[in-house]
Amino acid sequence: MSALSFEILAKDDSGFARRGRMQLPHGTVETPVFMPVGTQATVKSLTPADLTDDIQASIILGNTYHLMLRPGADLIEKMGGLHRFMAWNRPILTDSGGFQVWSLGDLRKIEEHGVRFRSHIDGAEVFLGPKESMQIQRQLGSDIVMAFDECTPYPATYEEADESMQLSMRWAAECREHLPVNAQQALFGIVQGGMYADLRLQSLEALSDIDFEGIAIGGLSVGEPKEEMMAMLDALAPHLPEAKPRYVMGVGTPDDLIEGIDRGIDMFDCVMPTRNARNGTLFTDDGKLNIKNLCHAESEAPIMQDCKCYTCQHFSRAYLRHLYMAKEILSSRLNTLHNVHYYCALMRRARTALEEGNWPEFRDQFLQRYRCEA
Amino acid sequence: MSALSFEILAKDDSGFARRGRMQLPHGTVETPVFMPVGTQATVKSLTPADLTDDIQASIILGNTYHLMLRPGADLIEKMGGLHRFMAWNRPILTDSGGFQVWSLGDLRKIEEHGVRFRSHIDGAEVFLGPKESMQIQRQLGSDIVMAFDECTPYPATYEEADESMQLSMRWAAECREHLPVNAQQALFGIVQGGMYADLRLQSLEALSDIDFEGIAIGGLSVGEPKEEMMAMLDALAPHLPEAKPRYVMGVGTPDDLIEGIDRGIDMFDCVMPTRNARNGTLFTDDGKLNIKNLCHAESEAPIMQDCKCYTCQHFSRAYLRHLYMAKEILSSRLNTLHNVHYYCALMRRARTALEEGNWPEFRDQFLQRYRCEA
Repeated sequence: MSALSFEILAKDDSGFARRGRMQLPHGTVETPVFMPVGTQATVKSLTPADLTDDIQASIILGNTYHLMLRPGADLIEKMGGLHRFMAWNRPILTDSGGFQVWSLGDLRKIEEHGVRFRSHIDGAEVFLGPKESMQIQRQLGSDIVMAFDECTPYPATYEEADESMQLSMRWAAECREHLPVNAQQALFGIVQGGMYADLRLQSLEALSDIDFEGIAIGGLSVGEPKEEMMAMLDALAPHLPEAKPRYVMGVGTPDDLIEGIDRGIDMFDCVMPTRNARNGTLFTDDGKLNIKNLCHAESEAPIMQDCKCYTCQHFSRAYLRHLYMAKEILSSRLNTLHNVHYYCALMRRARTALEEGNWPEFRDQFLQRYRCEA
Repeated sequence: MSALSFEILAKDDSGFARRGRMQLPHGTVETPVFMPVGTQATVKSLTPADLTDDIQASIILGNTYHLMLRPGADLIEKMGGLHRFMAWNRPILTDSGGFQVWSLGDLRKIEEHGVRFRSHIDGAEVFLGPKESMQIQRQLGSDIVMAFDECTPYPATYEEADESMQLSMRWAAECREHLPVNAQQALFGIVQGGMYADLRLQSLEALSDIDFEGIAIGGLSVGEPKEEMMAMLDALAPHLPEAKPRYVMGVGTPDDLIEGIDRGIDMFDCVMPTRNARNGTLFTDDGKLNIKNLCHAESEAPIMQDCKCYTCQHFSRAYLRHLYMAKEILSSRLNTLHNVHYYCALMRRARTALEEGNWPEFRDQFLQRYRCEA
């Protein structure tokens, strides 16, 4: 019996956008969904209560690479798994660690059965491959486990992208062997293939031969122009399996999410709302704003007029600018709360538009307004 | 009409400890009370909701010196005062800035009508005296305004302490002139006199000639041994005005607070719970613990067994240690929440003991257990 069930509740007749519902061991996830990133067993600066009560997040992401190095998968398992360790009782998706070790550049060496690398914390040599990643993610106890893959660099020649994709497909099969279908954890395969549509389709084909509970699209948002990213999603959209949730990894800006939904994507994650918050960059329907700017110094307005987050309900831009300039911890916290709330609320608005059958209007109005400022 | 009214609800027959209630423009304060320090218009890492809902703080402290330099008293006044600026609708006490400018050492010069100093932020020359401090605290709109005084250094000769105290007493009278009794803000005088009991009593006598709504004891916890601090409180205890709230400034550890209550003190403030939290030092009934210690690495226990704070209700020492080691913002936040909760809960326990007539037992049991660890 699978750990994941998925149903489509509504669809946009004019395209690929859909409104779904995913059942996982730790709860229900309404899609399209944004998953806040909780790299080191915490969504930076936020508590689980912030995420459930204010932000209404239904699923978060954890990073296998970071957690395996500190505090270590053995400790987390001993403490009852990642959910209990961080006091988060809703679903968790963990990535495989593949992207992070790939990002280490010279510090890692890719071999047939995984990657040998040095820890960024203490320099210790570590080996991580499909087998090890499945083992660690089992110890973490996440609801959704990601296959271990190699992220194809950008730019890459056709041959490089092909070779890299083929390796990821062999690893994908290995992952399923090490984590067979079970009631505790679902496993997602990851489409690679660089910026070559035919390789992407070959990759999707290879994954369809393996029984994954969901399909992710990896290797995007790695430096390519937005048009290339969207071209890959366009190429895949008609071929993605209807009955499985689809997840585009590490994407993106609010308008990227809307564009992704329009291309049939159900799940997103990105560090942007959390990381940008700490740099004073805040998201609104009118694009980004920088709270450092002098124009906010005496502004009694909230970040965004209709936002229901705790930050916007209580604090002026003038106060938030003061906290930022004074380097107060509360600055990171209030900014993060707003940004993550904004992303999750945007997904709620998208779901409502899909339910009510006015997705195209919602999408067009949103994109026009959001991009007007930028 | 005064902005403050104070009543004694219960007293310990065997000594000076008392249980009181203070009415201020922004609400009621049950005493003995601990006032969390919100230096830059924020109790570091905490929101007003944390302070009201979890910690149940009834009054917080703001720092005139920091606020006048950044974001500036004019801006805060323009934004509707400090309460509205920081979205805190319960009472606020502001200090006078005297202690901070005194702490600047070589960067300041004391004159007859105040102190000339350079801003630690941009080096600009600023003058702050009784008149200026009252003006700024009026702009901030705090419920309790502190008189502008000079903190006597430790150690100081009798002559130095005398001269310094006399200056503070002249400034105290000036403060009252510039902030006459009114319905919006109460004014507290500050006893100085270094570590000389007769100077302390002279200072108290001088203040009693001026109509202050409360009496503070300043110049303690400035490097002197604890016995000297307690000796000063002992000397003053029988002479403090019964009908006015008494506040010992910048004190102290949990056991200092209990000792202070025992000497008739009603109000306390200290950066210790907030600052120590960020360094990983946590308060419990068994003394302090350092969350960095390896002994907590696999501990499923909360910081303190019976603590009702959000941190203790949800997280293990193992998790808190992980957050600290990983330098996560949430570490500062969860630690601060616990420490400030601990201080405020300790005051609630003291009030209950005073109401129930078992103060001596509570005091002795607390001190024995707390000091056992240290």
